[in-house]
Amino acid sequence: MLLRLSTLFVRTLREDPVDAEVASHRLLVRAGYIRRAAPGIYSWLPLGLRVLDKVDAVVREEMERAGAQRVHFPALLPREPYEATGRWTEYGPNLFRLQDRKDGDYLLAPTHEEMFTLLVKDLYSSYKDLPVTLYQIQTKYRDEARPRAGLIRGREFIMKDAYSFDLTEEGLAESYRAQRDAYERIFRRLGLDYVIVAATSGAMGGSRSEEFLTPTDIGEDTFVRSPGGYAANVEAVTTIAPPAQDATNVPAAQTVNTPGASTIDALVTWLNDHEPREDRAWTAADTLKNVVVAVTHPDGEREVLVIGIPGDRDIDMKRLEASLAPAEVDTATDTDFARNPHLVRGYIGPQILGRHHTHDDDAIRYLVDPRIADGTEWVTGANITDHHQLHVVAGRDFHADGTIEAAQVRAGDPAPDGSGPLDLARGIEIGHIFQLGRKYAEALGLKVLDVNGKHTTVTMGSYGIGVTRVMAALAQAHHDSQGLAWPIQVAPAHVHLVATGKDARIFEAAESLAQRLSDRGVEVIYDDRVKVSPGVKFKDAELFGVPFIVVVGRGLDEGTIEFRTRVGEPQQVHINDAVDVVTDAVAAQLGGNH
Amino acid sequence: MLLRLSTLFVRTLREDPVDAEVASHRLLVRAGYIRRAAPGIYSWLPLGLRVLDKVDAVVREEMERAGAQRVHFPALLPREPYEATGRWTEYGPNLFRLQDRKDGDYLLAPTHEEMFTLLVKDLYSSYKDLPVTLYQIQTKYRDEARPRAGLIRGREFIMKDAYSFDLTEEGLAESYRAQRDAYERIFRRLGLDYVIVAATSGAMGGSRSEEFLTPTDIGEDTFVRSPGGYAANVEAVTTIAPPAQDATNVPAAQTVNTPGASTIDALVTWLNDHEPREDRAWTAADTLKNVVVAVTHPDGEREVLVIGIPGDRDIDMKRLEASLAPAEVDTATDTDFARNPHLVRGYIGPQILGRHHTHDDDAIRYLVDPRIADGTEWVTGANITDHHQLHVVAGRDFHADGTIEAAQVRAGDPAPDGSGPLDLARGIEIGHIFQLGRKYAEALGLKVLDVNGKHTTVTMGSYGIGVTRVMAALAQAHHDSQGLAWPIQVAPAHVHLVATGKDARIFEAAESLAQRLSDRGVEVIYDDRVKVSPGVKFKDAELFGVPFIVVVGRGLDEGTIEFRTRVGEPQQVHINDAVDVVTDAVAAQLGGNH
Repeated sequence: MLLRLSTLFVRTLREDPVDAEVASHRLLVRAGYIRRAAPGIYSWLPLGLRVLDKVDAVVREEMERAGAQRVHFPALLPREPYEATGRWTEYGPNLFRLQDRKDGDYLLAPTHEEMFTLLVKDLYSSYKDLPVTLYQIQTKYRDEARPRAGLIRGREFIMKDAYSFDLTEEGLAESYRAQRDAYERIFRRLGLDYVIVAATSGAMGGSRSEEFLTPTDIGEDTFVRSPGGYAANVEAVTTIAPPAQDATNVPAAQTVNTPGASTIDALVTWLNDHEPREDRAWTAADTLKNVVVAVTHPDGEREVLVIGIPGDRDIDMKRLEASLAPAEVDTATDTDFARNPHLVRGYIGPQILGRHHTHDDDAIRYLVDPRIADGTEWVTGANITDHHQLHVVAGRDFHADGTIEAAQVRAGDPAPDGSGPLDLARGIEIGHIFQLGRKYAEALGLKVLDVNGKHTTVTMGSYGIGVTRVMAALAQAHHDSQGLAWPIQVAPAHVHLVATGKDARIFEAAESLAQRLSDRGVEVIYDDRVKVSPGVKFKDAELFGVPFIVVVGRGLDEGTIEFRTRVGEPQQVHINDAVDVVTDAVAAQLGGNH
Repeated sequence: MLLRLSTLFVRTLREDPVDAEVASHRLLVRAGYIRRAAPGIYSWLPLGLRVLDKVDAVVREEMERAGAQRVHFPALLPREPYEATGRWTEYGPNLFRLQDRKDGDYLLAPTHEEMFTLLVKDLYSSYKDLPVTLYQIQTKYRDEARPRAGLIRGREFIMKDAYSFDLTEEGLAESYRAQRDAYERIFRRLGLDYVIVAATSGAMGGSRSEEFLTPTDIGEDTFVRSPGGYAANVEAVTTIAPPAQDATNVPAAQTVNTPGASTIDALVTWLNDHEPREDRAWTAADTLKNVVVAVTHPDGEREVLVIGIPGDRDIDMKRLEASLAPAEVDTATDTDFARNPHLVRGYIGPQILGRHHTHDDDAIRYLVDPRIADGTEWVTGANITDHHQLHVVAGRDFHADGTIEAAQVRAGDPAPDGSGPLDLARGIEIGHIFQLGRKYAEALGLKVLDVNGKHTTVTMGSYGIGVTRVMAALAQAHHDSQGLAWPIQVAPAHVHLVATGKDARIFEAAESLAQRLSDRGVEVIYDDRVKVSPGVKFKDAELFGVPFIVVVGRGLDEGTIEFRTRVGEPQQVHINDAVDVVTDAVAAQLGGNH
């Protein structure tokens, strides 16, 4: 493989694109791998496709090794199957919907559980046909509210999605394990660090799911780990609820005048000034913060909801959204408050909230953090401007309609399984695997005859890798201030050969070297441009990020060329040894990655 | 490569699918290559993907050989570029349109001229950058009014589309020739007969285009050929207009009472009965037939139009549509006639039609076949029920608003270039190549600096192959009553190995043979199913259409296996020679196709 830069369809940019916040996005655009076609929608140039093809090939090989069989579904699909499982509605505005010329409803599929279920139903009918795992590598669509970071969160993207079909729970566990192992092999082969964390299932449904995250500061996902081995996406972290407390000795709730204390900080200051405790100072953890949010349900209905959390914590919007999915969450607007005049901003208390408590089915629902256990005592709003109440006891003075995981998780919080204090980090989700169970098979009637001739509903797993996102994550993990620095197994070429100077002899020698390397199976980008300065050529080489760089230039008079890795020091190699030295170095790096 | 039928995700059908009219569609579904997901939208099973991959690989190799560079564009695209070229509107109901969550207009691209033009504009700025030819193999969308014949006319399909960019006409001609040559190599390698015919450019625009058709009775396209080498899609055939005639001696138009003669046949009978000619009998060719059609323009406006053609010909709807594109054509409805009471059904004459003639810009337009030359004399309707007129002379008694190619072309019609009488045949369009010229570059401002530093608009070509359609055409060209019969270079495997009987020894021998063939690079489908009868296994083998069939069965007692081609007679081969004999036969067939 030999690409000549004089004709290769690529142009590098010296300037960062204005819309690029993260390095991988910036560099993939600047190095001419991708171009933006619309928000969250990208066109691929030759170098970008070469990397994508290599990622694709690794995914494919490991899927085949795991026994998954390849199929391919349309992206444009009719509404009916998604209606049957409820996802036509549940996906809300994230789904691209359209109509054909006969007014039939269609969608651009965000994921294909329904279609795989129906295909297996079409072809298979007996337990003897199972287990089977099918996969595709295919273009998917999601109308993200906030496409960002280039390929990391796009609206048109490529996914590998696999689906397993089993008769029993044990079978599902085995199929799940085979995919999980394949994912580990894939990310290892690609040279991408990963952690496996417990996750929520979101719109997918199902009983158990895990995410593969690659740790990076620019990740959208926060995950936690404990010394004892617990690992979870922060959205999946459950809070240890304290046992119910005995509140018999707690005085009756007492209303106090707290002028201007509409924030937790102001309230704590007021408490320490006017109602000092003997044992210790008041802290934010003694207060109960009530946050009003507006929830849009998939059917479009808007619900105003109040969430109660300890005053020393904030709401984590992603945790809140995960808890309320498939509904979408916004902060409450002035209109929401105007419609609910009993919600007194800055002084909201739960004493008047909750359907259970008020015996009013139209009352505002009140959901609390699990720490707000029965019998716990709080300072909270009195539902009157400039007033709070002391000694407000959960289960005595108010009743929540349920608990919710919405408060932020903090470093040092206990792991839910008792394995120690949590550590926090950020990552990009590169894979997500689900034990779906029978949700889709039930909704779409996928049954097979079991060994006794009885119709049995099949149990399913679903396994996704964002292929284009993985490529972005690789770019993010492997770059420096000068440009990309691909691992050799996904680099667009193995060697970037630069000819410098104007001497025809140099170009002849470089051309010959490029040819001979290519004949030996080395993938070469050869910068054969005549009127481009060495400085520009070196900058382009750094930007492209091919792992080995060869320079044929003035050293040729002494019979040497320069050879180095993308990030290493140059060494002089005799021109007669160049093919062997470079080929061996490439083979060694490639070999080390299998 | 070794696929075992006991686990391969495939099921064959004994019955034809109800919606399948043509053999390729029927057999691809029955053999488990594809499944219908929605009208004109298909899912791909493992065997189908294997064939598709092989077609894809040949297309890709020949594109690379022709110097085209691979890129990849989104399918989901914003409206603006297509608005700039007018195609957002011109595509009419054939375009899938949708809106995103911010009410932005998007489309699913039917073809990508706009995006390629913009990308080259983004990257290139000088004549030194040209020529360049880019291509992609990508999923396309067209909301066909009548999806049919499975993959042949679908709504979601895979296309290879390439685009060339040149500074000069000569450069464009060269780029066009390179693609044209590549197409010939592709179809030859795939084992698909083709003819190259002159074509119309339709919604694509541009100065010149040719189609690659594969001849088949089920083709939607009709093409013509002359002994002198003329070849054209019937839509591109132009009619030789006779010279203007001297009509000074033709009597004045004369209205005659023709009760009930509302058809051409009835009129000719009436003429021969009541107005016999001395020199010869009247024929339909003496009459002028006026056909009312309703045209829907891309902006949605409906226009009623009258087409005049010699009475011995019918309207060819596809020729008419091609002539009126991008407008769409329907037959006129009762409502159309009710709104235009001067159009007397069965007795319409052009004497009252035409804007030119009536000096009325709102009058119904009248377009005629080129044979209706000035001075030609006709019998036609008198615009009164039961009445016709004799001696109606074009240019004297009526004036058309223009000519139109809408009449059917018949075998024996003269080729427009004088190369002899035309022969007619049917075919499937498998490729279409266009010299677009500067239409898109002008609309989107693609200019480069020429050698004198002057901004020059680039000239373009566009080159498409329907990859999924090519696969269907291959299935259509290579099948018999029993099933598919793939050429080896696109077959899902080289050898279909069947084990018959229940003897474990047979399965052991078959498994060992399958393994050894696979180790030698032969692609094997091995029917290792234990409880399936030999009859069913043979039927499946015929249906799948793999080029070589090996049977391991009772002959094993004598040390022999059976070996045959999909369509040939079996020969007995000693089990010890089997690997060599089969491998050699496969290599010989594969070799003969390169």
